[in-house]
Amino acid sequence: MNFELIAKDKDTSARVGKVKTSHGIFETPAFMPVGTQATVKTLSNQDLSDCGVQIVLSNAYHLYLRPGEDIIKAAGGLHKFMGWDKPILTDSGGFQVFSLAVLRKVSDEGVEFQSHIDGSKHFLTPEKIVGFQTTLGSDIMMVLDECVHYPCEYDLAKRAVKRTLDWAGRSKKEFKPNKGQNLFGIVQGASYKDLREECAKALVAMDFDGYALGGLAVGEPKEITREMTQFTVEFLPEDKPRYLMGVGEPQDLIDAVASGIDMFDCVVPTRNGRNGTAFTKTGRVLLRNAENAKDFRPIEEGCGCYACRSYTRGYIRHLFNVGEILGLKLVSLHNVYFYQRLIEEMRDAIKENRFLKLKEERQWKAKL
Amino acid sequence: MNFELIAKDKDTSARVGKVKTSHGIFETPAFMPVGTQATVKTLSNQDLSDCGVQIVLSNAYHLYLRPGEDIIKAAGGLHKFMGWDKPILTDSGGFQVFSLAVLRKVSDEGVEFQSHIDGSKHFLTPEKIVGFQTTLGSDIMMVLDECVHYPCEYDLAKRAVKRTLDWAGRSKKEFKPNKGQNLFGIVQGASYKDLREECAKALVAMDFDGYALGGLAVGEPKEITREMTQFTVEFLPEDKPRYLMGVGEPQDLIDAVASGIDMFDCVVPTRNGRNGTAFTKTGRVLLRNAENAKDFRPIEEGCGCYACRSYTRGYIRHLFNVGEILGLKLVSLHNVYFYQRLIEEMRDAIKENRFLKLKEERQWKAKL
Repeated sequence: MNFELIAKDKDTSARVGKVKTSHGIFETPAFMPVGTQATVKTLSNQDLSDCGVQIVLSNAYHLYLRPGEDIIKAAGGLHKFMGWDKPILTDSGGFQVFSLAVLRKVSDEGVEFQSHIDGSKHFLTPEKIVGFQTTLGSDIMMVLDECVHYPCEYDLAKRAVKRTLDWAGRSKKEFKPNKGQNLFGIVQGASYKDLREECAKALVAMDFDGYALGGLAVGEPKEITREMTQFTVEFLPEDKPRYLMGVGEPQDLIDAVASGIDMFDCVVPTRNGRNGTAFTKTGRVLLRNAENAKDFRPIEEGCGCYACRSYTRGYIRHLFNVGEILGLKLVSLHNVYFYQRLIEEMRDAIKENRFLKLKEERQWKAKL
Repeated sequence: MNFELIAKDKDTSARVGKVKTSHGIFETPAFMPVGTQATVKTLSNQDLSDCGVQIVLSNAYHLYLRPGEDIIKAAGGLHKFMGWDKPILTDSGGFQVFSLAVLRKVSDEGVEFQSHIDGSKHFLTPEKIVGFQTTLGSDIMMVLDECVHYPCEYDLAKRAVKRTLDWAGRSKKEFKPNKGQNLFGIVQGASYKDLREECAKALVAMDFDGYALGGLAVGEPKEITREMTQFTVEFLPEDKPRYLMGVGEPQDLIDAVASGIDMFDCVVPTRNGRNGTAFTKTGRVLLRNAENAKDFRPIEEGCGCYACRSYTRGYIRHLFNVGEILGLKLVSLHNVYFYQRLIEEMRDAIKENRFLKLKEERQWKAKL
């Protein structure tokens, strides 16, 4: 993995880096908007580029079911299919197999499941998932892992770690790092420190291009997410990117960056956008609320996003009130822009050794 | 009305003009995308400008109900409310009162009805509708008229014309042409030539800023639409814009321009866009169809719209297949762009005295 560390914060474990892929560079900390079905919901590629998005996430499970390998292969890979020429990370779909699929049967060999869409039967193995992501042409692909729910009994979590490690080894073996593709391992272990440690160490011994923390932000208290993140990062090599999967809210990103996390993905900005909830430096704005009806300020004063430059809270509230699609898009756009600015501010603050100050300022504002 | 005739076709009644409003100039023939609820469905103002849209239509009936006069007044008018600084025409809502509202009671005084949204009771008069459109700040406002269905008995159509003329007179009296606003009369008369003639002549005697043909494209055979359009235009002054309401499909626009029509509005490009039907020079493309799954050409070869420059048929088919909003927007955008190009091509052809050739070419292609 071509990962260059640019700066390290003096007060925390925060760091700034650069990842070179065959589809260009992305800087870390990086936030990846979620394009589950090969589209970040409501947004065009131009919208994403205008927000400063450098890498998007998509999902092997969803793409495997629709449109399917055949079509993406015919298109010449996922980048060409979705018209996005910058880096793409694809999740293996482990989480989706365990949360969406029905009649799931997990064996050491792999997972048999029925599609949540049409009930069709599928059997996925770690090797098949690597092969599929190779076809996708993902710049970063994730291994298939076994996810557990929260709370999870120790024995179950231990068994999942064992299988995750076994599958990680098989994935690594299957992986042919052609065209500059990269493969990340995923640390499981629920909220058990010894399992997290064991899993992290074993994965590092396999030498992946980067390491993800999986099985967090699945319903556990935020204190546990933070604790597990801080704890697990210690076992990961400094010269590889660290990716905290499925996190999170703005404050969670700041906390995790302080712990040394480099990459994030989360549906929070886009899902909230479609619900009419906007993020601002001074807290959330619920645009559907009647109090916005005659509020002709932008969502956030001083914000440079297209929604804030062009439209008012009152107008966007009207769009939600009458069920117009443009509303969903404008708030999603604002939120993705907000997340990119937050990530950029963190990068700048780390470079200038004032990350702790930014962290404290934002904590204070988060309470408003 | 500041309407300048630029060119007249030598073979047909087609003409090119320019309308100056206090929000800028629009050229005719003009096609106005429909922004019923102060938004052209799925498209941002930037999208519309990128398509070359010079004027949009909105609807007084819908805006009167939501967000209501109070909010738009507080925003400083409709242009400011929706963030669109180019010309706006607002329909009076006559058609909507007669097609959407429930428990409608029409009297000579006005229309009592219940909102189709919440059942609230309202009473609209011609004067009130002019007053509301004055508050909206519409560059062109339409009088309240009485619309009839197709087919319509002669006596009913005659009575509607009488009332339409009475209301037109009251609207004209109420209208204070401040801030460069303009008021158009609407010719009714169903499919009866004598009624159309009577209505047109009486409206012209009242001296409106422009004249619309209403009550067409309401289900009658296209031959009748064409015949009534050709017939009625003859009674309208050459130095005022002529607006055929609610029309139509690409071929309808070409036919109507040949008859001397200057302005159009229709939901066809946007509604079809949301259904996944795209217009091209060689006919319609039904993007949902499975045959597009591996078709990685743009919707239309050579089209300069954002959707065609950035995405393929196969990808857009996938978006529709998995229910992603971006699909609705991309096809709407393409269709609005297509309509603007068609209108521009007609303007150019008229200026260069080759409109008949264009008309024949397009008729041939429409059959494909």
